[in-house]
Amino acid sequence: MTQHTALSAQPAGPGESAAGPRIDVEALGSYLLGRWAGVRRAARDLTADPDLHRIDGLPMAEHRRRVTAQLQLLVERGSVHRAFPSRLGGADDPGGNIAGFEELVLADPSLQIKAGVQWGLFGSAILHLGTAAHHDRWLPDVMSLRLPGAFAMTETGHGSDVSAIATTATFDPATDEFVLHTPFRAAWKDYLGNAARDGKAAVVFAQLITGGGPRAVRHGVHAFVVPIRDDGGAFLPGVGGDDDGLKGGLNGIDNGRLHFDHVRIPRTNLLNRYGDVAPDGTYSSPIASPGRRFFTMLGTLVQGRVSLDGAAVAASKAALAIAVRYANERRQFRATPDAEEQKLLDYQLHQRRLLTRLATTYAASFAHEELLAGFHEVFSGARDTDADRQDLETLAAALKPLSTWHALETLQECREACGGAGFLAENRLALLRADLDVYATFEGDNNVLLQLVAKRLLSDYAAEFRKADFGVLARWVAAQAADATWHRTGLRQMVQTVADSGSEKKAANYLKDEASQRALLTDRVGAMVAALAGSLRGAAKLPPAEAAKVFNRHQHQLIEAARAHAELLQWEAFSRALAGIKEPGTLAVLTRLRDLFGLGLVEKNLGWYLMNGRLSAQRARTVGPYVNRLLHRLRPHAQDLVDAFGYGPGQLRAAIATGAEGLRQQEAIAYARRARGSAPVPEQQPQAHV
Amino acid sequence: MTQHTALSAQPAGPGESAAGPRIDVEALGSYLLGRWAGVRRAARDLTADPDLHRIDGLPMAEHRRRVTAQLQLLVERGSVHRAFPSRLGGADDPGGNIAGFEELVLADPSLQIKAGVQWGLFGSAILHLGTAAHHDRWLPDVMSLRLPGAFAMTETGHGSDVSAIATTATFDPATDEFVLHTPFRAAWKDYLGNAARDGKAAVVFAQLITGGGPRAVRHGVHAFVVPIRDDGGAFLPGVGGDDDGLKGGLNGIDNGRLHFDHVRIPRTNLLNRYGDVAPDGTYSSPIASPGRRFFTMLGTLVQGRVSLDGAAVAASKAALAIAVRYANERRQFRATPDAEEQKLLDYQLHQRRLLTRLATTYAASFAHEELLAGFHEVFSGARDTDADRQDLETLAAALKPLSTWHALETLQECREACGGAGFLAENRLALLRADLDVYATFEGDNNVLLQLVAKRLLSDYAAEFRKADFGVLARWVAAQAADATWHRTGLRQMVQTVADSGSEKKAANYLKDEASQRALLTDRVGAMVAALAGSLRGAAKLPPAEAAKVFNRHQHQLIEAARAHAELLQWEAFSRALAGIKEPGTLAVLTRLRDLFGLGLVEKNLGWYLMNGRLSAQRARTVGPYVNRLLHRLRPHAQDLVDAFGYGPGQLRAAIATGAEGLRQQEAIAYARRARGSAPVPEQQPQAHV
Repeated sequence: MTQHTALSAQPAGPGESAAGPRIDVEALGSYLLGRWAGVRRAARDLTADPDLHRIDGLPMAEHRRRVTAQLQLLVERGSVHRAFPSRLGGADDPGGNIAGFEELVLADPSLQIKAGVQWGLFGSAILHLGTAAHHDRWLPDVMSLRLPGAFAMTETGHGSDVSAIATTATFDPATDEFVLHTPFRAAWKDYLGNAARDGKAAVVFAQLITGGGPRAVRHGVHAFVVPIRDDGGAFLPGVGGDDDGLKGGLNGIDNGRLHFDHVRIPRTNLLNRYGDVAPDGTYSSPIASPGRRFFTMLGTLVQGRVSLDGAAVAASKAALAIAVRYANERRQFRATPDAEEQKLLDYQLHQRRLLTRLATTYAASFAHEELLAGFHEVFSGARDTDADRQDLETLAAALKPLSTWHALETLQECREACGGAGFLAENRLALLRADLDVYATFEGDNNVLLQLVAKRLLSDYAAEFRKADFGVLARWVAAQAADATWHRTGLRQMVQTVADSGSEKKAANYLKDEASQRALLTDRVGAMVAALAGSLRGAAKLPPAEAAKVFNRHQHQLIEAARAHAELLQWEAFSRALAGIKEPGTLAVLTRLRDLFGLGLVEKNLGWYLMNGRLSAQRARTVGPYVNRLLHRLRPHAQDLVDAFGYGPGQLRAAIATGAEGLRQQEAIAYARRARGSAPVPEQQPQAHV
Repeated sequence: MTQHTALSAQPAGPGESAAGPRIDVEALGSYLLGRWAGVRRAARDLTADPDLHRIDGLPMAEHRRRVTAQLQLLVERGSVHRAFPSRLGGADDPGGNIAGFEELVLADPSLQIKAGVQWGLFGSAILHLGTAAHHDRWLPDVMSLRLPGAFAMTETGHGSDVSAIATTATFDPATDEFVLHTPFRAAWKDYLGNAARDGKAAVVFAQLITGGGPRAVRHGVHAFVVPIRDDGGAFLPGVGGDDDGLKGGLNGIDNGRLHFDHVRIPRTNLLNRYGDVAPDGTYSSPIASPGRRFFTMLGTLVQGRVSLDGAAVAASKAALAIAVRYANERRQFRATPDAEEQKLLDYQLHQRRLLTRLATTYAASFAHEELLAGFHEVFSGARDTDADRQDLETLAAALKPLSTWHALETLQECREACGGAGFLAENRLALLRADLDVYATFEGDNNVLLQLVAKRLLSDYAAEFRKADFGVLARWVAAQAADATWHRTGLRQMVQTVADSGSEKKAANYLKDEASQRALLTDRVGAMVAALAGSLRGAAKLPPAEAAKVFNRHQHQLIEAARAHAELLQWEAFSRALAGIKEPGTLAVLTRLRDLFGLGLVEKNLGWYLMNGRLSAQRARTVGPYVNRLLHRLRPHAQDLVDAFGYGPGQLRAAIATGAEGLRQQEAIAYARRARGSAPVPEQQPQAHV
């Protein structure tokens, strides 16, 4: 076990990359593939098929047709039905289904998301919100694509606030029908995939109303299956719509708008698992509270967020595989006049740009694997209490914002790190980024999701004395026991200064210690939540409008606390994953990578740690240099670390990640060697003006 | 003068927006238009012409044809020749030329950049690197577009390191010709606008070689006018090329590659202002040092960076005009069950997202106006010493990275802040971002430019004792006089704590004081440069390869120092601009906006200020809350602040910035009011499960 010496805080000696730890790339690759390795491998083989690839520059109409045809190919190859019941031809394998689905992003994100609309949203809504009769009646056609459908939740006027949508579904006992209606322009359904062209039906979310006139009662948002087009593709009577037209990306999907003018559907088209209406108009539900019912219904759709988390991780991996390969071949500038030009990845700044994001990508990947496992537990029914569902939803709401923003930032940094080549479509990065852009706001706006996480943190905090175990949060209770005075007066900082007795090495030992990192990250979340709880404590007694103002004055803090919590979750997942790595070389390198991730978080929030007395100025000053040292020591392993992602030419398909740049550089170097001696000499520097 | 009370640190009273300061939007608008207001107004009128607009979703080939035709329209309307000599039909007005040019970005960035290639790069190279005979021979055809040309500097293997390009131009005295040659694949010219389709000629940068065989001498990079296509559009003998194909944006431009196989051009096609070859092969130059000659030649091309800085500012303004308008009309979520839904811009987080970037945009705008004025001074010949040119180049290298990154970040934040609507092409943000993406790496990679700035800071620092006045940098010499001990032992922090005696108000008064902000920002630049100089001091004595390693170990710090310097320049420009505002209400609001910008910089780097003893923990803890208070107080002025940018529907052309969202919201509110009393009542919460 070479771990101890490998992790030494001593500067790397000159022979380090030869004598130091080595990654077992194949073993690490298998480990990263996780629980559904077989499904992922099969999905990656699928994404290598040119028939499923995006063709850059297709006009929107052709791109849409191509993606629609590709969906049919997915059906033929049996790649998209794992989540559906076995009795209908599925595999009752919700986790495996997502694992395969998220890999599709590297064929064409439009294909991934259009498949997600058809089977993940439209089909899932029927599966999870409907009951057996609905499954029998519609799922076979949904699975076979004979019934392409839209998922009509969002309205032009209501995105994140789903409970406020304005479309109504009023029950008419005279005809045993619901009447779907759009009362005004802002209530049009909007941004719906499959709505502009392909959709024959839609699952429409609307306010369910029973009883007429003054006795009318609104039971909140429910889902209805509504036919929208005839076989010729024309809108059915009362249905209208619009094409959302060109978008910033994902132009293989026919997003559009829908509206309803007193459209009648049979009563039995209500997806009635969580709320039903009898022929006499009596409403019933297994969940008495309308609020809890609403959140339960929405909760069944969490898989969208889970799969975006996974797709964002996959795209980040691909981007880094392209940019690291290029940075390992491309040369620019000479250190000295007779040296060869330096490889980009030997520059400290380039390491900062790519390797820090590589560390975050590993963290996000391990965190996603845990999220996916949790999702599978709940949706396979293995662990499916209300609390399990709420934990899953909170975890998805925490991870999806971080991973989707991370993907955008990584794609952008990789594109810039590849210079002009990064901007060419042939190198994937720019167009992948354009497609993934909307991942930050769909299936839950990232900021709204983080706010939900913060509210959960606050309610867990309030429940502190009632609940013995609440996972991650338990730890910071201990941290809170210490008086805030301890931190704020600088007592802790003084102790750190004395402990380090001015030694950078001691400070570095502290930073690379897993327990220190955990304490720093955990303590921050705890202290932020406690501070928020303190600030908001009085609000409960204020009139609602005043309370809302107090809440709003702390909104930025709320989001920051949720982000800190989500980052801690990623760090914990990374640390847990280290426990599963047996091979010492791989473990040594990945431990450094985890340290880079953890200390990168500390470095980013250094102001907080200092301001709140968690780090002495002396220790704080060692963080940046220690991060730089980690970058230097990880640099020799960069190629192995991206190779372990397991993406080959079939998935990457980037001209600069094929070795072409390496060949060009070799050709140039060989030319210079041949010319040596016969090359023109440089003009002499004049004596006077050097 | 209401400034004093307006700037009070007291929380805003309820009537603040009525009784508080108001912006004179028209006056501020004129002020922002700056020295070339007339030219800008005319250019904006031009950008409102549908013939010049981008049509979203055009196939690449059509988009290219459209932009080429638009260039002809610009010629017909006489909008693009101000920089050229009056004797040839220009106006000898380099500053005005750029002012008009950068506004074109809102018609279509492809149009702006293709015009930039033709007149700003190809034409400017002939103007600035050539001499009178070249001007007479080529400029009329360049101006009229009879001679479309490429600017062939970058090679596939050499972007930022121009001095290392490998294309050769070898003089052959036997025929009085230069022989242009591409020795290997990495030396192909790449990413050149006008190269794939339209270019008939190119200004090719190549290593000039005189003398044959063992007596051959390389005189460094020079520029040559090289015909590349015949009138039918076919490559001339020896010339070859490639199409760069689809890109992440700017697809109205025909970027491509060029290579040369012993292509012969007359000796007089050398643009010989800074280096000439006599018929006998004798090389001569007015600049004896090859290094200085090279940088002088490149320096004449600084206008590309100046104009990208301006175009990035224009795009940021447009993005914020769209997103702020929408956030002022769009409503989402209710604070209380019977309240109207809240406008997005009333949320603290939304203010954080948009108003901080609005402050930076104002700072970047004022800084650009100064850069443009400096550019005009140099290129009109009014102040044109070597030192003036170097200052201009450093200023451009500092501002262009910050403004182009800021534009990308702002476009992205605005796009996300508009949710799904922000992703639609009809709302401009996503596609503008795609087009502007490459601004971060062309005309000088942003990180490479910042490194140049850092090197200048270091050389100014080294010259400290030889040079009495070196502008911005002079101030921190004083700051350095105080011993580092003063900062690092916390003595200064203790003094701050005592001075504030625990009062948040006193800390806030400190923060909003212009002199405090200046001191904080200036001190940071000074201390960072001093620390770097200290770290690098020993390197000069090391062997070159070792010295390069030391330098590389501090590359991240170098870039951070340059960034801090550039931010200070923006802050200073904003502060100077305040001095020119006479109207008290406008001055009061803009002063707050400047404070938001300055304190936003302090907040971002709080870790540094604490770690290096510049702020006490107590003062540091007031920064975030004070920024939040500024956001709250600026919020009522947000619409005025974007209206003052002066962009109307002709420039913005975004469906959500037309008032449509406001009408939709009014319709929904009116519907709810009409329905009041007759609306279905919500289902009752059950007693048990609240």
